[in-house]
Amino acid sequence: MGNCCERAASFFGPQKNTYVRVSLPAVCFVWQIAMVVLFGVFIRYDDESDVKGWLQYKKEHNITSDIENDFYFRYPSFQDVHVMIFVGFGFLMTFLKRYSFSGVGFNFLIAAFGLQWALLMQGWFHSLDPVTGKIHIGIESLINADFCCAASLIAYGALLGKVSPVQLMVVTLFGVTLFAVEEYIILDLFHCRDSGGSMVIHTFGGYYGLAISWVLYRPNLHLSKRLQGSVYHSDLFAMIGALFLWMFWPSFNSAISHHGDGQLRTAINTYLALASGVLTAVAISSLAEKKGKLDMVHIQNSTLAAGVAMGSAAEFMIMPYGSLIVGFCSGIISTFGYLYVTPFLEKYLKLQDTCGIHNLHAVPGMLGGFVGAIVAAAASVDVYSEQGLINTFSLEGKYRNRTLGTQGAYQAAGTCVAIAFGLVGGVCVGFILRLPIWADPADDFCFDDEAYWELPEDEETIPPVLEYNNHMTHKSQDTCESNFALEES
Amino acid sequence: MGNCCERAASFFGPQKNTYVRVSLPAVCFVWQIAMVVLFGVFIRYDDESDVKGWLQYKKEHNITSDIENDFYFRYPSFQDVHVMIFVGFGFLMTFLKRYSFSGVGFNFLIAAFGLQWALLMQGWFHSLDPVTGKIHIGIESLINADFCCAASLIAYGALLGKVSPVQLMVVTLFGVTLFAVEEYIILDLFHCRDSGGSMVIHTFGGYYGLAISWVLYRPNLHLSKRLQGSVYHSDLFAMIGALFLWMFWPSFNSAISHHGDGQLRTAINTYLALASGVLTAVAISSLAEKKGKLDMVHIQNSTLAAGVAMGSAAEFMIMPYGSLIVGFCSGIISTFGYLYVTPFLEKYLKLQDTCGIHNLHAVPGMLGGFVGAIVAAAASVDVYSEQGLINTFSLEGKYRNRTLGTQGAYQAAGTCVAIAFGLVGGVCVGFILRLPIWADPADDFCFDDEAYWELPEDEETIPPVLEYNNHMTHKSQDTCESNFALEES
Amino acid sequence: MGNCCERAASFFGPQKNTYVRVSLPAVCFVWQIAMVVLFGVFIRYDDESDVKGWLQYKKEHNITSDIENDFYFRYPSFQDVHVMIFVGFGFLMTFLKRYSFSGVGFNFLIAAFGLQWALLMQGWFHSLDPVTGKIHIGIESLINADFCCAASLIAYGALLGKVSPVQLMVVTLFGVTLFAVEEYIILDLFHCRDSGGSMVIHTFGGYYGLAISWVLYRPNLHLSKRLQGSVYHSDLFAMIGALFLWMFWPSFNSAISHHGDGQLRTAINTYLALASGVLTAVAISSLAEKKGKLDMVHIQNSTLAAGVAMGSAAEFMIMPYGSLIVGFCSGIISTFGYLYVTPFLEKYLKLQDTCGIHNLHAVPGMLGGFVGAIVAAAASVDVYSEQGLINTFSLEGKYRNRTLGTQGAYQAAGTCVAIAFGLVGGVCVGFILRLPIWADPADDFCFDDEAYWELPEDEETIPPVLEYNNHMTHKSQDTCESNFALEES
Repeated sequence: MGNCCERAASFFGPQKNTYVRVSLPAVCFVWQIAMVVLFGVFIRYDDESDVKGWLQYKKEHNITSDIENDFYFRYPSFQDVHVMIFVGFGFLMTFLKRYSFSGVGFNFLIAAFGLQWALLMQGWFHSLDPVTGKIHIGIESLINADFCCAASLIAYGALLGKVSPVQLMVVTLFGVTLFAVEEYIILDLFHCRDSGGSMVIHTFGGYYGLAISWVLYRPNLHLSKRLQGSVYHSDLFAMIGALFLWMFWPSFNSAISHHGDGQLRTAINTYLALASGVLTAVAISSLAEKKGKLDMVHIQNSTLAAGVAMGSAAEFMIMPYGSLIVGFCSGIISTFGYLYVTPFLEKYLKLQDTCGIHNLHAVPGMLGGFVGAIVAAAASVDVYSEQGLINTFSLEGKYRNRTLGTQGAYQAAGTCVAIAFGLVGGVCVGFILRLPIWADPADDFCFDDEAYWELPEDEETIPPVLEYNNHMTHKSQDTCESNFALEES
Repeated sequence: MGNCCERAASFFGPQKNTYVRVSLPAVCFVWQIAMVVLFGVFIRYDDESDVKGWLQYKKEHNITSDIENDFYFRYPSFQDVHVMIFVGFGFLMTFLKRYSFSGVGFNFLIAAFGLQWALLMQGWFHSLDPVTGKIHIGIESLINADFCCAASLIAYGALLGKVSPVQLMVVTLFGVTLFAVEEYIILDLFHCRDSGGSMVIHTFGGYYGLAISWVLYRPNLHLSKRLQGSVYHSDLFAMIGALFLWMFWPSFNSAISHHGDGQLRTAINTYLALASGVLTAVAISSLAEKKGKLDMVHIQNSTLAAGVAMGSAAEFMIMPYGSLIVGFCSGIISTFGYLYVTPFLEKYLKLQDTCGIHNLHAVPGMLGGFVGAIVAAAASVDVYSEQGLINTFSLEGKYRNRTLGTQGAYQAAGTCVAIAFGLVGGVCVGFILRLPIWADPADDFCFDDEAYWELPEDEETIPPVLEYNNHMTHKSQDTCESNFALEES
Repeated sequence: MGNCCERAASFFGPQKNTYVRVSLPAVCFVWQIAMVVLFGVFIRYDDESDVKGWLQYKKEHNITSDIENDFYFRYPSFQDVHVMIFVGFGFLMTFLKRYSFSGVGFNFLIAAFGLQWALLMQGWFHSLDPVTGKIHIGIESLINADFCCAASLIAYGALLGKVSPVQLMVVTLFGVTLFAVEEYIILDLFHCRDSGGSMVIHTFGGYYGLAISWVLYRPNLHLSKRLQGSVYHSDLFAMIGALFLWMFWPSFNSAISHHGDGQLRTAINTYLALASGVLTAVAISSLAEKKGKLDMVHIQNSTLAAGVAMGSAAEFMIMPYGSLIVGFCSGIISTFGYLYVTPFLEKYLKLQDTCGIHNLHAVPGMLGGFVGAIVAAAASVDVYSEQGLINTFSLEGKYRNRTLGTQGAYQAAGTCVAIAFGLVGGVCVGFILRLPIWADPADDFCFDDEAYWELPEDEETIPPVLEYNNHMTHKSQDTCESNFALEES
């Protein structure tokens, strides 16, 4: 297998090679060493994770029990988010028949690098101690770092199969950097609430990936068409990823929302929206096929759009039926996207979006941003109470006098900032990735793990062929013997 | 592949078609819209998830810390239960060689619809506010909704491969409805304790599914025999489901048990019983084969019976060795069931039980109900203390004077109610499902994803065949070239 | 398939059989009955899981809220550890092409037995009530029992494919016993801190398995070479295991560390080290192949070494950059081990280590032990504060006057004890396992599930062959028809 594919590759694409033996280790080592140095200079434990700090914190705040440590409020949600990042996103991208190693493996690499860089970038922008010049990290920092990676992983979804791991590291480096800046603008300057990241994660990540993919357009991608589909079992692996994303989305949205009712309400709203989205995604998927058959692409992806669309509003008093309505719409929009918009984008806008992140992240994220804006603008003292409004929208300090209409406007503006950052940032990064130094695969060698992985000889595809040859030469041998013969050869 | 299967289907079963293009979207849309409307009328946040409510609740109960919100007591268990429902049940049903998409996919659909309907039904029966006419939902409602779905998913286990998704929606609609009623009788009227649902979930769900399957008996199911087994990798996917069920069963049983010692004791007891059940299931499985080989069916299923059998008693003071004994017996009973009872039921009672839910849910659930009755009847002030008895069995208010013997008798009666509801309800629903309008597959087209899913062309089975043809016509081509040729064709 | 493999087996290895029909059920039943009896005599609930106990405990400690029950501090971490033991270790061992059932199945059996025996052994050594002669178990006991199993599961990694399930039960029986003793010496007598078990779990487990494997050396193992690799999808199953281990390692290390800052800091440090280790493992893996291709073995295993290496030090104030450095080194060391040390050990030391536990557990565990020693010795009042030092190193009671240098020396000595117990214990158990009564497979029948499992006839490999024969005899039949024909035959 190895041999013959190499031959094929050299026949079709002699102009490109996918050797990353120098570049990949170099990038990994240099960046990891940089991380060690920068962490040494900047990163310290926060009060809740520091031996001395926590003793002092308890004394100052008159806390008697360790259960008040933020660890116990957020750690279960953090672990759910962690599973979403590594197993959820990772396995969702294993659906291609021969790109599963790269799907889950490069996802792993990106996230492992991205979360370190995110701790630094987010630290510099959000929590740099002005006196000591240090960043103090705790459980919320870990969650935010995971969130930040998510944007780059979403971008990977659009690029899946068409880029090298070195390019992905570049995508992540810039992705995390841009994320920290737009997040600073949206959450700090605009003072938006976006606990599940409809804007900062999904809208930004979606458009970032789409813009890169647009710049990297490959006119001859059809040469890899043979590998662009799934096989039965690769779809089941992808289903593992899809379900872990679906199940843990309530934790994703509620992981950093307000303690108490905030986390609980966010979880409830997300749970309801997701359930609603499944039914409409199934309905549209079935409607679109002449006998009503379902398409795994929709089941794996469109059922998740509701979680994306609830990323801003889930923390607000959107009411249970409001959540159902948002889920209802997202399931429909997302499935329509897979059916009609993705093919349209590819044909007319020259935009190749492998996983359809346009339908799963970009559009539902945008929807979520605007739903958040509307729900915020519609908030009233009647429903929230005075104190409740202040808590929910953090209208304290210099934001004390902001009206809810203004808050809504800022939420909407935040969504636009996320789109702009995604598109402009993505185009710039895309041009960087077009430099001929990144060892990306030739057009006929896309969607193929062979490019970057040592693959096992595959018992399941190879033997019958050889067996056949054996049969031809030693006619009377029985199946079993030839089977053993070939496996030993 | 697609083409030839269609041809085969039209040859064997021209009288039936599996087109769900109208019915499935119609059911999904109508029911989801109904959910939106009913949620709008009835469902509101409870005090712990409402902005105003939680502020007030904290003031009234003199609570200073948000950590006292029920979210922090139950959310980790809720997420474990959620994983059991979607990944656990879902992947356990992927064991068939060509029905894995339906196994995990329809499980997803059923649960997503069921949990919405469950919030309404359980709300109406258990927590309808008599003044406002509203149902207030919180974290416990979500867990209960997941539990309620479990009964319908269990029923799906008996029907796996033989029904259409539209039928499954009907099974779920009635399943959830019946569940809410029998739960009301058992938990509210009889005042039983059943935190892990031995009675209300497993016994009811098991007999409900068996009764439906009995009514839907297919005399010519052998026509689908070629698809009724597993393949190597489908058994591994099923093992994912089995293990997530096994691991999280302590959370399942303890998710809604009493705060503090109640949740911890329930988890410990379930953990021990499950461990014990693995050893006896392995032992019987090995004993039954002439060389002592193990059967994956038993490892995937019978190892779980102990969790079912501890659903009622795990919260009581059954003692650690008591848990081991319950696990010991369930492992044996369940494996025996798979070896002898299921074939017997199929042959003599005309009962086709695809997943063997009789052995995994119905009988162990019944066992669990009676174990709960015995342990309750044997409770004493000596072991529990006065206050402990009151807490554990909620013997307050009008149940203040109930003796433990009476409590035991009610627990036993509750089990019988669950059986009765399952059997009678299942027979009725079965007859509804025999109407010739549901697009269920013909006898020779069961256990086949082809009926309701657009399947990928499978690289793993198809190529060698075509390759062979290629070899026949262009004799001297080498393997690699023909491989590419066929993939591009 | 079944038939022909049996034939092959009888041809190659008539001297050995793998029948476990008597031995396996006998061991399971006898040991499980012994567990029931011993639990009856010794095991009781602790104060936090007992109805009466918790009421009294709350009164004595003036606790008003159930949230102070240790359940809420540790249960989420416990469940993560549980997932690591059953899905993490289990699926990591499914990478072989035809040994996945045994990988995940025997892992399940070992752990289910091991945790029961561990509750007893650890109870006798650590928490036997001197007055009543009882062991009181709570949530921490469950976590410790899972930890204790981990050592035997690590040992299984070295033996994978070469031993019978009965031998594995023996490995576990002695493994758990030895574990309890060395743990008693290291944690109680030496008073070391080892919350994630670098020493007691990984170092011990690693050398225990290696020593057994060394004694059981098979000179003709090359006869099973055909089955010693992976296939594409088995590598993906293994990736599920690898990722769940990687994601939940912060919970593993922090599960039994100190409440509050202790658990949080341990989680942060482990999270950082693991991220760092991924990059260096990828770098070395890529460097080692002539085109820079990655090897799945390294991605699945070496990325985890950082978690092992942080098992002791993660609870200390190693500082975030310190964690990154430990991860950096472990990723490199572990990948080098897979590339050069494992082949060396096999060739020159006659040590066959199927999963490479030398590189994933033994060496990183040892590294972790010494890192812990250094970080402990370097601790200062400046960083920890007086009270902080006492809390972190439990320097209370008779250890009040121990200096940190001494503590470091004890930590180092503890590592040596773990190595010694592993090697000596392993050699002894190895000789027991060489008795000719254990039904282990012949050299040409290793790595084959056929030996102990009833395997499904595999649609994926068989049909094409038969099909071919059909083509030969009925030349003009089309593919589809022959396909049906063979499946019905």
